[in-house]
Amino acid sequence: MGQYQAFRVELQEKIAHVVIDRPDKINAMNAAFWTEIIDIFRWADETDEVRVVVLSGAGKHFSSGIDLNLLAQVSSQLGKDVGRNALTLRRKILELQASFNAVDQCSKPVLAAIQGYCLGGAIDLVSACDMRYCSLDVQFAIKEIDIGMAADVGTLQRLPRLIGDGMLRELAYTGRTIEAAEAREIGLVNRVFETHDTLLSGVMDIARSIAAKSPVAVRGTKAMIGYMRDHRVDDGLDYVATWNAAMLQSADLRVAMMAHMSKQNPEFAD
Amino acid sequence: MGQYQAFRVELQEKIAHVVIDRPDKINAMNAAFWTEIIDIFRWADETDEVRVVVLSGAGKHFSSGIDLNLLAQVSSQLGKDVGRNALTLRRKILELQASFNAVDQCSKPVLAAIQGYCLGGAIDLVSACDMRYCSLDVQFAIKEIDIGMAADVGTLQRLPRLIGDGMLRELAYTGRTIEAAEAREIGLVNRVFETHDTLLSGVMDIARSIAAKSPVAVRGTKAMIGYMRDHRVDDGLDYVATWNAAMLQSADLRVAMMAHMSKQNPEFAD
Amino acid sequence: MGQYQAFRVELQEKIAHVVIDRPDKINAMNAAFWTEIIDIFRWADETDEVRVVVLSGAGKHFSSGIDLNLLAQVSSQLGKDVGRNALTLRRKILELQASFNAVDQCSKPVLAAIQGYCLGGAIDLVSACDMRYCSLDVQFAIKEIDIGMAADVGTLQRLPRLIGDGMLRELAYTGRTIEAAEAREIGLVNRVFETHDTLLSGVMDIARSIAAKSPVAVRGTKAMIGYMRDHRVDDGLDYVATWNAAMLQSADLRVAMMAHMSKQNPEFAD
Amino acid sequence: MGQYQAFRVELQEKIAHVVIDRPDKINAMNAAFWTEIIDIFRWADETDEVRVVVLSGAGKHFSSGIDLNLLAQVSSQLGKDVGRNALTLRRKILELQASFNAVDQCSKPVLAAIQGYCLGGAIDLVSACDMRYCSLDVQFAIKEIDIGMAADVGTLQRLPRLIGDGMLRELAYTGRTIEAAEAREIGLVNRVFETHDTLLSGVMDIARSIAAKSPVAVRGTKAMIGYMRDHRVDDGLDYVATWNAAMLQSADLRVAMMAHMSKQNPEFAD
Amino acid sequence: MGQYQAFRVELQEKIAHVVIDRPDKINAMNAAFWTEIIDIFRWADETDEVRVVVLSGAGKHFSSGIDLNLLAQVSSQLGKDVGRNALTLRRKILELQASFNAVDQCSKPVLAAIQGYCLGGAIDLVSACDMRYCSLDVQFAIKEIDIGMAADVGTLQRLPRLIGDGMLRELAYTGRTIEAAEAREIGLVNRVFETHDTLLSGVMDIARSIAAKSPVAVRGTKAMIGYMRDHRVDDGLDYVATWNAAMLQSADLRVAMMAHMSKQNPEFAD
Amino acid sequence: MGQYQAFRVELQEKIAHVVIDRPDKINAMNAAFWTEIIDIFRWADETDEVRVVVLSGAGKHFSSGIDLNLLAQVSSQLGKDVGRNALTLRRKILELQASFNAVDQCSKPVLAAIQGYCLGGAIDLVSACDMRYCSLDVQFAIKEIDIGMAADVGTLQRLPRLIGDGMLRELAYTGRTIEAAEAREIGLVNRVFETHDTLLSGVMDIARSIAAKSPVAVRGTKAMIGYMRDHRVDDGLDYVATWNAAMLQSADLRVAMMAHMSKQNPEFAD
Repeated sequence: MGQYQAFRVELQEKIAHVVIDRPDKINAMNAAFWTEIIDIFRWADETDEVRVVVLSGAGKHFSSGIDLNLLAQVSSQLGKDVGRNALTLRRKILELQASFNAVDQCSKPVLAAIQGYCLGGAIDLVSACDMRYCSLDVQFAIKEIDIGMAADVGTLQRLPRLIGDGMLRELAYTGRTIEAAEAREIGLVNRVFETHDTLLSGVMDIARSIAAKSPVAVRGTKAMIGYMRDHRVDDGLDYVATWNAAMLQSADLRVAMMAHMSKQNPEFAD
Repeated sequence: MGQYQAFRVELQEKIAHVVIDRPDKINAMNAAFWTEIIDIFRWADETDEVRVVVLSGAGKHFSSGIDLNLLAQVSSQLGKDVGRNALTLRRKILELQASFNAVDQCSKPVLAAIQGYCLGGAIDLVSACDMRYCSLDVQFAIKEIDIGMAADVGTLQRLPRLIGDGMLRELAYTGRTIEAAEAREIGLVNRVFETHDTLLSGVMDIARSIAAKSPVAVRGTKAMIGYMRDHRVDDGLDYVATWNAAMLQSADLRVAMMAHMSKQNPEFAD
Repeated sequence: MGQYQAFRVELQEKIAHVVIDRPDKINAMNAAFWTEIIDIFRWADETDEVRVVVLSGAGKHFSSGIDLNLLAQVSSQLGKDVGRNALTLRRKILELQASFNAVDQCSKPVLAAIQGYCLGGAIDLVSACDMRYCSLDVQFAIKEIDIGMAADVGTLQRLPRLIGDGMLRELAYTGRTIEAAEAREIGLVNRVFETHDTLLSGVMDIARSIAAKSPVAVRGTKAMIGYMRDHRVDDGLDYVATWNAAMLQSADLRVAMMAHMSKQNPEFAD
Repeated sequence: MGQYQAFRVELQEKIAHVVIDRPDKINAMNAAFWTEIIDIFRWADETDEVRVVVLSGAGKHFSSGIDLNLLAQVSSQLGKDVGRNALTLRRKILELQASFNAVDQCSKPVLAAIQGYCLGGAIDLVSACDMRYCSLDVQFAIKEIDIGMAADVGTLQRLPRLIGDGMLRELAYTGRTIEAAEAREIGLVNRVFETHDTLLSGVMDIARSIAAKSPVAVRGTKAMIGYMRDHRVDDGLDYVATWNAAMLQSADLRVAMMAHMSKQNPEFAD
Repeated sequence: MGQYQAFRVELQEKIAHVVIDRPDKINAMNAAFWTEIIDIFRWADETDEVRVVVLSGAGKHFSSGIDLNLLAQVSSQLGKDVGRNALTLRRKILELQASFNAVDQCSKPVLAAIQGYCLGGAIDLVSACDMRYCSLDVQFAIKEIDIGMAADVGTLQRLPRLIGDGMLRELAYTGRTIEAAEAREIGLVNRVFETHDTLLSGVMDIARSIAAKSPVAVRGTKAMIGYMRDHRVDDGLDYVATWNAAMLQSADLRVAMMAHMSKQNPEFAD
Repeated sequence: MGQYQAFRVELQEKIAHVVIDRPDKINAMNAAFWTEIIDIFRWADETDEVRVVVLSGAGKHFSSGIDLNLLAQVSSQLGKDVGRNALTLRRKILELQASFNAVDQCSKPVLAAIQGYCLGGAIDLVSACDMRYCSLDVQFAIKEIDIGMAADVGTLQRLPRLIGDGMLRELAYTGRTIEAAEAREIGLVNRVFETHDTLLSGVMDIARSIAAKSPVAVRGTKAMIGYMRDHRVDDGLDYVATWNAAMLQSADLRVAMMAHMSKQNPEFAD
């Protein structure tokens, strides 16, 4: 699991709880954040005991997005030649994207519990999660437009798969803030909880219910849904047939079936 | 039209009414179901008199999904070699998928009227229909997760085109039940009717209004919308131009135009 | 900007206001309409001073769709050979599509303000805009089905990216009218305003807020969202990295950042 | 295996030899041909004992293509309405295509041995095979252009994946005949044999060498190469990883490895 | 047909002969070239009498590529802001590409007759043609690498569909010259003719043989092959079925069939 | 550059020479090989001084492919549950693929110099290089079929983009060996050199000629060609316009132009 500067990570009841832990900086995403998140999600991906991941932020806010110091630092690495600068910037953006790709590609479901500010890069981040839940005080804003740039670490790529096109454009062009009710209405979050406490306990309940399922089935389900984001229906049908050709030979089906018949809760191996 | 073991089929006023007819088994999908549905929808596809299909379930429930005996039977066909078993399973899954592909690829609109249980394979089925309507007592659940497997006959492939990604994942990972209001809210069904009776008569009304349109235009419209599920906007524009290059030479435009001018209801050939 | 027969165009505060201006014909789309719209949106696209476009209709209604005289005229150009007619029709449809492609491909956001009738071709048109807003008296209907044809200038291609599949099919197969509340609920419009006046002033407010942002950032944001309609997430991430490799070297970031720090409104070059 | 009117089928040494058997009609493709070929290749696909298919023509020629009587018959089914005729023709073409799709989708390698005429529809057919071999007297021509139509059962869709674009266009636009040496040079055939006899025995040798390999490995290899015809490299890599996740658990690897170490020929189960 | 500064255009025997006509400038592509080529190919596309296009260069050489003065002129339009320059350059490149897209999208076959130098932009141009033929003295080189840039008007996009990947990369990275024999061997040209005269008369012979075919069939064939460059085999099969649904109702099939039976040359309407 | 167990790496004249260095094991790919190759190509990718990479094998042979001990080791990690084994194997295959993806995605051209055996995994490896050159004694064989499996680290995914489909299938199904002349003829290698010495010096000459070009232009050219392997022509044109929007502002164009005019060799910054 390891020790991190920007995060705190716990593993209990098969659930990895990943907390962005820089509350005094409104959980701004600094250099440590961008590299540590890759390690954490690789660990979650590869550790059989982890069946679900819950992602949250310490303190009043989920996160204010990328740390502006980091942007300044990138800027300072540029030289005089526009072409070579472009190659440098392109590589740097791809590197930052890789951090959130690690979240997106984690083979276990990732649930985001979001309170307070969720701004700029924080929306890029939660767009890479499986499901999003929030408390009543949440404030979402695609802030990148206000620093003179198009968002480039995932918001404009993943959000179109999550919410309607018309509202997405309004939010992305104007940078306006939306609150819990509207976020729920447009499908950005699945559910709104009253307080920070009920948010976290509510999300943990959902996580536990997922952790009790067959991990082979949950990973397969996630892989199939992820696949459909970018593939045709016929390709998806072929892919699931190929995937399940192996997975239906797993013991989990028998375990599930027997539990079903004996009205007991099944126990699945990790 | 034929006689079927798992279905009852009627054709009236250009509408084929296809009823899953095993109410004492909660309309569970047995071996007959999976082969007959192909014949029925091929017939509906090829019979000019059929302009719309309504799909419903006899009795209290729409369907409880795949018959578990069928799964057991598949399982019994497996041998010792994992590789050859995988080839067998892959072929079997593709075969089952073909049954719902027949629904999906039917060139006439298919409207599902859903009451009571709509579980597991039943969601795979209604995902392959054009529109879904339900009564107040409906209960949807992606049950596959509870038998230890990823759904593999269409739910995880077609539902992502029908409802939002965030809610889809929650439902697929947890298997939780949703009722009529939530189904309506997330766009899984178009409308909720009070009772089984008002559901069926309401859906028949919609079916009749479609059956009164030009069948050439309705089939073209369905083909174009179906095409967009998996193709680019520019490809779709080219495709409709190629399609309409022939269809705009049909007599139906003149018939429709004359009816429009004389304020009468048009009568279109099958 | 030029003078037009079917339109009136104004440019104020960086906002191009494009008004369909044949109110006595319910803004039906005649021959002039289809060619002029290309010139207007090319002008809007290429003119640096234009940062946002607002599209509306003069009089009581937004537009009743294509002028039926135009259809009759196309019909009169057909000869005896079905094959050669098909080539002619295909070319003609592609030409009409090109008119709305010009709206779709305009590099600046296009906001539609819609009142009264928005029928047939008018839905094809507003589907090509970035955002749609309406007044309470709006009436949308995919009328093409009632003249015996599948819509072929964009509705069936672009609307599937804007509203849910189930409702889209119902509306396209039945041609039924929907009003403001339902349009809002299914995501066809972003917001409903009481009257024609509050509609236009409300849309202008949104337009102004977009016009105040960095034009480099807004164009980039639009390009990225447009790209995602037809591309994979991984391709979108690569594309934005390549795009921003140049754009992050723009002065607008520094301007935005300095305004942010000094709590002043930034002023961006066109 | 069955009895056929247009074909003769033999199964020896794990090789199904499928012979088009209407030599007095230059093996023209009549109605029986188009339906029987589906049954034959489904049988070959599903029969474990069949590991390779060899396709050849009886008599002096491979095949002169579609039987013109069949075309006349389709033509006679058309009525007065261009639109309904178009729906009928489209369905008929899709049906004919399905016959060669059955060849293309056969999970075992299909080797074509081609002598004499290979014209029109015959090129559509051999384009759907895995490999093509010919004798010195072969004559290929894309004859469809000379009967006033674009080839529509596979040549224009599959040949672009087999030979260079420039030569393909010349052959398709002019319909000119090419002989063995040029066919070899452009990659249409893998090898040229002197006579009909050496052709067939040469192709049988290759077939035997394939039949001696692990059938699990051969089918996997064919599935992977087929997949790449229409998919991205990254998708192909993911697909083979998913496929081999099951297949590498097959006994065939151990059998192959042990044979390799003991310098003996491996014996694989069907 | 019109009068042009950079071209000379003739129409004889249904063949449009388009000659780049700046021999004293080695047919370098100046501003007039880039705009006129769009008009010429739109004319060829829309003029029924034109059935084939032959493209050649006046004088000793086909073309030395883009006129360097034009590049200098583009460069002079750039300002200080890297972001705005990027938007300007991107638009300019897209404009230049549009000139060769007009060649690519011409609905009639385009045959290039190439002698002497065919350098830089000239390769981009001939890559957009259907077939390429050359004389013995031809010299091809992807010269863009030597002026410090990646080719951006089509070579790197279309050549990968025409010649093998390995040789393409060598030629593109090194800029080395290849001559007639090698061009033939790698499939860049279909055939090599001894002299300029035999080249032109040979290409005209091929053009005449295409012009004698059904124009409906030739255009369909070109559309189908073009479609396959970027689409899947299954999509191509569906597309040709949809296309031929109209085109098989053309009189040309009957004309062709009757000519075939009476052993006469068919005469097709334009 | 670092020290490696399975490789020897040198950097001279802007060319990184990467040598597989286990000649006593016929350069079989052991565990060290698979991890070190990622580090080496990441270094080559990120080091500005490296402009071209040459890849070769020490000793008599290029490489005999994957070390069979490694396969045995993977096998020993499997447990009893087929489903969990499948997840483990899938992950392992993806890991091995990542090693050759690092070669494929290196932003500088990679030239393979191949002598002696190039078997199994070695073909997967050279398929990921830009160009392939060989000596007369080369022997290529897709050996995976002989160990009972479908090749899964790139051959079946990348080779279809390099050589013709018909020959590829023959080689993949039969595993037969091809020598230098045939490899040249089917386009697998660009050129054949007599001896090991002339091979290496010949490849170095080509590498030097590439290293002398603008590195911005070479990287752009490689990126564009790589992009076309999996994208449409229209997407490729848009991508190069976006890419060159930045890169045409590089100083390299001016440097190249001035060298061109003064007939001197240009000197480009790294």
